[in-house]
Amino acid sequence: MDRPHNFSAGPCILPLEVFEKASQSVIDFDGSGLSILEISHRSPAFVEVIEKARALALEQLNLNNKGYKALFMQGGASMQFLMTAYNLLERKAGYLDTGTWSANAIKEASNFGEIEVIASSKDSNYNYIPKNYAIPEGLDYLHCTSNNTIFGTQMKSFPELGETPLVCDMSSDIFSKNIDYSQFDLIYAGAQKNMGPAGATLIVVKEDILGKVSRNIPSMMNYELFIKKESMFNTPPVFSVYVSMLTLEWLARKGGVSVIEKKNQAKADLIYSEIDRNSLFEGFTAKEDRSMMNATFTLKDGSLAPRFDKLWKSANINGLNGHRSVGGYRASMYNALSLESVQVLVDAMKHFEKTI
Amino acid sequence: MDRPHNFSAGPCILPLEVFEKASQSVIDFDGSGLSILEISHRSPAFVEVIEKARALALEQLNLNNKGYKALFMQGGASMQFLMTAYNLLERKAGYLDTGTWSANAIKEASNFGEIEVIASSKDSNYNYIPKNYAIPEGLDYLHCTSNNTIFGTQMKSFPELGETPLVCDMSSDIFSKNIDYSQFDLIYAGAQKNMGPAGATLIVVKEDILGKVSRNIPSMMNYELFIKKESMFNTPPVFSVYVSMLTLEWLARKGGVSVIEKKNQAKADLIYSEIDRNSLFEGFTAKEDRSMMNATFTLKDGSLAPRFDKLWKSANINGLNGHRSVGGYRASMYNALSLESVQVLVDAMKHFEKTI
Repeated sequence: MDRPHNFSAGPCILPLEVFEKASQSVIDFDGSGLSILEISHRSPAFVEVIEKARALALEQLNLNNKGYKALFMQGGASMQFLMTAYNLLERKAGYLDTGTWSANAIKEASNFGEIEVIASSKDSNYNYIPKNYAIPEGLDYLHCTSNNTIFGTQMKSFPELGETPLVCDMSSDIFSKNIDYSQFDLIYAGAQKNMGPAGATLIVVKEDILGKVSRNIPSMMNYELFIKKESMFNTPPVFSVYVSMLTLEWLARKGGVSVIEKKNQAKADLIYSEIDRNSLFEGFTAKEDRSMMNATFTLKDGSLAPRFDKLWKSANINGLNGHRSVGGYRASMYNALSLESVQVLVDAMKHFEKTI
Repeated sequence: MDRPHNFSAGPCILPLEVFEKASQSVIDFDGSGLSILEISHRSPAFVEVIEKARALALEQLNLNNKGYKALFMQGGASMQFLMTAYNLLERKAGYLDTGTWSANAIKEASNFGEIEVIASSKDSNYNYIPKNYAIPEGLDYLHCTSNNTIFGTQMKSFPELGETPLVCDMSSDIFSKNIDYSQFDLIYAGAQKNMGPAGATLIVVKEDILGKVSRNIPSMMNYELFIKKESMFNTPPVFSVYVSMLTLEWLARKGGVSVIEKKNQAKADLIYSEIDRNSLFEGFTAKEDRSMMNATFTLKDGSLAPRFDKLWKSANINGLNGHRSVGGYRASMYNALSLESVQVLVDAMKHFEKTI
């Protein structure tokens, strides 16, 4: 059987060669006779894995030798909503409210200090990215979400802040394009989109922003401690880190973020052209804010949904249902998804238009 | 090549049939054509996995229909050091200090309230379990560590507390024997010993002890919220939960904790008999507190270590080095380790004695 065309929003498709290597390592990791699941996290073999993953992450973001450290932690982006505030929020932070995850980040950070919502697109169900907002002086940091997985919007540029640290939840578009990652002081990302399976979270932090809050930070929340312990304060999520390393190696072999960006752009162009051309569908978001990762669209006539659903499922497409906050459809097109899979979806949309 | 005899302290050996099934599911999960790593955590297939894992955990502990809920979270036991205090510590809690992990639990909980150390064996490098201590009135809870992986001691009985909740870090001996688990109000355990790979943490909590502290609990720290969300507040560590389910299914097929306890007892009897018999070795801990999971021992003449190390490594034994806090050797004998592997170690010890 051919593998399904997997448009799942995350956890999501990873390269087949990564699945194959990971599968083999669950039985026998690098010829050791031991499973990757049964080796000590303190073994030289695993220390090499996590060090390679940390190094590859910085390398792919072009952040080597710029004062950044890469960490693998647990708990997903949701834990980072809390952890960023624990480590950075002394008095007041600014947040851009561009979607469900932004709103959750605001809620969690509010446990630790004052949060000022600088701009929000909540009033129109987050279907655009706010622009032209004023940023007040004296913030401990500004927090933004680069890509809004649920709504399908993506920030194409980021505020210039001078001394104020810029913190970004990049869970759903990290490693997808070549931007200047050094404009951020802290980036975090749940692994389960472009980096690996669920269970690991990447944090890339500029060391000089840390150590400035007065509160006691519990060990498991403390970036400085995790840096000191080389990302092994306690047992890391071994397998998720290992598969992240494999995926980052794959990305490097493919030519890195510049090359993958061209492929991602081609996939996005293909699907959005069809959404705009096809008389049956319409896009959900403002055109200038469309995400290269998650294309959200609906049927103009919702009553056609059962027929379209049957059609795409019969084309061996998986995971196309939109999030309940938006409805309709969401085509998530992460790094490992092929252009051919997008073409299969586009063909189904064209075919559907002809047969209606 | 035969698989190594893996005495690793954790992450550790799991059943070979679990590795084989997990390996296959990384390529094709239950005939879906999709990897277990790329399916949505909200898909019916994965919801079934996590629900089965939660149910099996309660079932194996004989805690069905007794007011308990099982949760899978992230961050390991170290995150629970923090989380238990967040959820339960209003004024003062008591802690038994029986090893490195107990001490860490005390340190983290101290961020949230007053901690009284009820008893400690720190003065003798934690080589015994304190007994005959008085427990003060009015504690929010008492915290203990059932098995001390590093030092090789294990609690054989637990304090009777009446109304005071008993909280237990059971990371390294949960599911290893048939005890009355209902004497605990909250049990937590990092998966990476008897349950699965690193990256998941099991929490089994009696619901009626929750909701009694006055502080705001951040969402990712909040047991009540995770219960309400059926252990899926955010993306869970999908693969670690899946492999935990497979391991719990294996345990159930083998006859459960009563049957595995007999096997674990036989393994422990075999190694401790040899430690006591062999003129070259001595046990590290008080005999009555010896752990059934982790046997710690040293060479009476440390200068023989290089020769013994060479011998056990040549016998295809892995992970026998003691923790740096103890030195010497540690034979971790979790559920999936066979009696035959322990016999190979015992034979190596006997052979070593003869050749010296």
